[in-house]
Amino acid sequence: MNWENHVRKVVPYVAGEQPKNQNVIKLNTNENPYAPAPGVAQVIQNFDCEILRKYPDPDVSVLVDVLAKYHGLDSSQVFVGVGSDDVLAMSFLTFFNSGKPILFPDITYSFYDVWANLYRIPYERQALDDNFYIKKEDYTKKNGGIVLANPNAPTGIMTELSVLEEIIAANQDVVVIVDEAYVDFDGKSCVPFIEKYDNLLVVQTFSKSRALAGMRIGYAMGNPKLIQYLNDVKFSFNSYTMNALTIAVGVASVVDEVYFRQNIAKVVATRERTKIELAKLDFTFGDSKTNFIFATHKIVPAQEIFEALRANQIYVRHWNKPRIANYLRISIGTDEEMDKLITFLEQFLSKEKI
Amino acid sequence: MNWENHVRKVVPYVAGEQPKNQNVIKLNTNENPYAPAPGVAQVIQNFDCEILRKYPDPDVSVLVDVLAKYHGLDSSQVFVGVGSDDVLAMSFLTFFNSGKPILFPDITYSFYDVWANLYRIPYERQALDDNFYIKKEDYTKKNGGIVLANPNAPTGIMTELSVLEEIIAANQDVVVIVDEAYVDFDGKSCVPFIEKYDNLLVVQTFSKSRALAGMRIGYAMGNPKLIQYLNDVKFSFNSYTMNALTIAVGVASVVDEVYFRQNIAKVVATRERTKIELAKLDFTFGDSKTNFIFATHKIVPAQEIFEALRANQIYVRHWNKPRIANYLRISIGTDEEMDKLITFLEQFLSKEKI
Repeated sequence: MNWENHVRKVVPYVAGEQPKNQNVIKLNTNENPYAPAPGVAQVIQNFDCEILRKYPDPDVSVLVDVLAKYHGLDSSQVFVGVGSDDVLAMSFLTFFNSGKPILFPDITYSFYDVWANLYRIPYERQALDDNFYIKKEDYTKKNGGIVLANPNAPTGIMTELSVLEEIIAANQDVVVIVDEAYVDFDGKSCVPFIEKYDNLLVVQTFSKSRALAGMRIGYAMGNPKLIQYLNDVKFSFNSYTMNALTIAVGVASVVDEVYFRQNIAKVVATRERTKIELAKLDFTFGDSKTNFIFATHKIVPAQEIFEALRANQIYVRHWNKPRIANYLRISIGTDEEMDKLITFLEQFLSKEKI
Repeated sequence: MNWENHVRKVVPYVAGEQPKNQNVIKLNTNENPYAPAPGVAQVIQNFDCEILRKYPDPDVSVLVDVLAKYHGLDSSQVFVGVGSDDVLAMSFLTFFNSGKPILFPDITYSFYDVWANLYRIPYERQALDDNFYIKKEDYTKKNGGIVLANPNAPTGIMTELSVLEEIIAANQDVVVIVDEAYVDFDGKSCVPFIEKYDNLLVVQTFSKSRALAGMRIGYAMGNPKLIQYLNDVKFSFNSYTMNALTIAVGVASVVDEVYFRQNIAKVVATRERTKIELAKLDFTFGDSKTNFIFATHKIVPAQEIFEALRANQIYVRHWNKPRIANYLRISIGTDEEMDKLITFLEQFLSKEKI
């Protein structure tokens, strides 16, 4: 018998490509096109590196405190991790142990089934309707937990809060995770439901709206009991997940709300303008409340457009998966980047149509 | 039925205290008393914060490459994580799935049983002998994997490499993890065995000898197949565990070998001097090859000394556990800090003996 027989074999998540070539127009991983808050650079430049010899604060208190204050919560209601992926991975491990299948949409963040497979959690995908909206009756059947991205990825579609509340209320015997990675770009948050439902965990991230994907900061909010259980698992995994610099950077980002709002307003304005341009070019798409547009062209197959863009150093995301193979997920870049995208598409599509 | 019934309930690891009071002489968590390599501060001060808007390199290539080069390995033989705790947690999840109990000493790093409990991995503790050495015959019984800290913590004792090799060779149907967190302080590494045994995983950290506990960097070395399996699990958990700054800092540390050797030499010299002073004060201890001394006093109970030290703002580590309740683990600080410790002990113990 070989040691390989005892290995946990998994099929890992495949993230969007991170090209080493700096000339690429990178609209494939929903990164923010602008720099993080100016305070971030200040904190890093003035950082006392001598303290790195010591372990960081395992409770990440200063960052937990500013996040709690920002969201009008108590610090006991906030958990911080290494990006929202880390937070979600720990949440799956902590909360989904009933043996019953957890539920999530057929089209959603493609890490959910990877985490379920990693931890051998059974799951059932629920089909979105033809316009990529969830059907709430799918989430009232017996289950071991629910995870919903809102707004959803890669569709960009927002579920009404009243619908989400019905789902949370109907499932008080399990934990319902609402993954709000993109909520800051015009979405509506479930955070106000936390006081009402002790089975709700809301997850957010610094990677998109705070332009800090490179720093790895995500967090969860819920009632203190949920957060305590999550912390127990975290402290059974790694006492110190957040390094000293990351904690300081996170605080610098949260305290600059003016910059945060300006950054988001710019991205949202560019998104709305891009929607108009894409519509003119015969793309159709849902009402994205995120920093990306999930678009399909009326005539030209997505795969063809994807490859043409790529050959011209414009990277967007495309999945060869059922129901979405004819869609492209286009992250919102700077106005200049989107102009280049639109100009290229105008030329490419006019040739295609001849 | 309540959602709490489905929670993974665990008893987390308790790390050494991180007091907010800066005046404490902190000899309780085996931190390095000196700053990290000067290149670390340079890298941080010159860091281009604009790139933080982008995701970091998920493969952590530059850091993997310098570590491989440093250890004379191929990059396919190195895995990097958020401190060696993160690496060990992922290794337990990846490799210990046989259902048979894993083996580790009764006195060792107290996170091993926490990880086993987290993942519901059965385990059996093997008693060290009266001098805190492992008995190799304990590790030839049927098992689901083995984890040995070498040098061991909190004892500081080093197992001979020939003994370790016998254990690795006798267990080729399971993965043997050798946790070398403290190996740089005069210990001998198992890394040369990697070419010979494909079931060996060696884990090291930047937290002690590289004075970067605050940055959270650890790594594993093994044959490419082991590393690939570990990466598959890592990419099923979180694509980006290492942030962009951490990667740069790690590289800056590894490339400065002169500073690294000087730092270690200073700590080792202080340790040897402290041994002499402690012996004069009627402490006994094993031959520590680490940056701490695990000592017991011939007359005065450890708990009493621990509390007296603490009341005087000198923190060491003490566990109320079988066999080690009469020991203190004293991290090696600066010469000045150790002088203060010794001076206090001289006074305190002379009073005790009256």
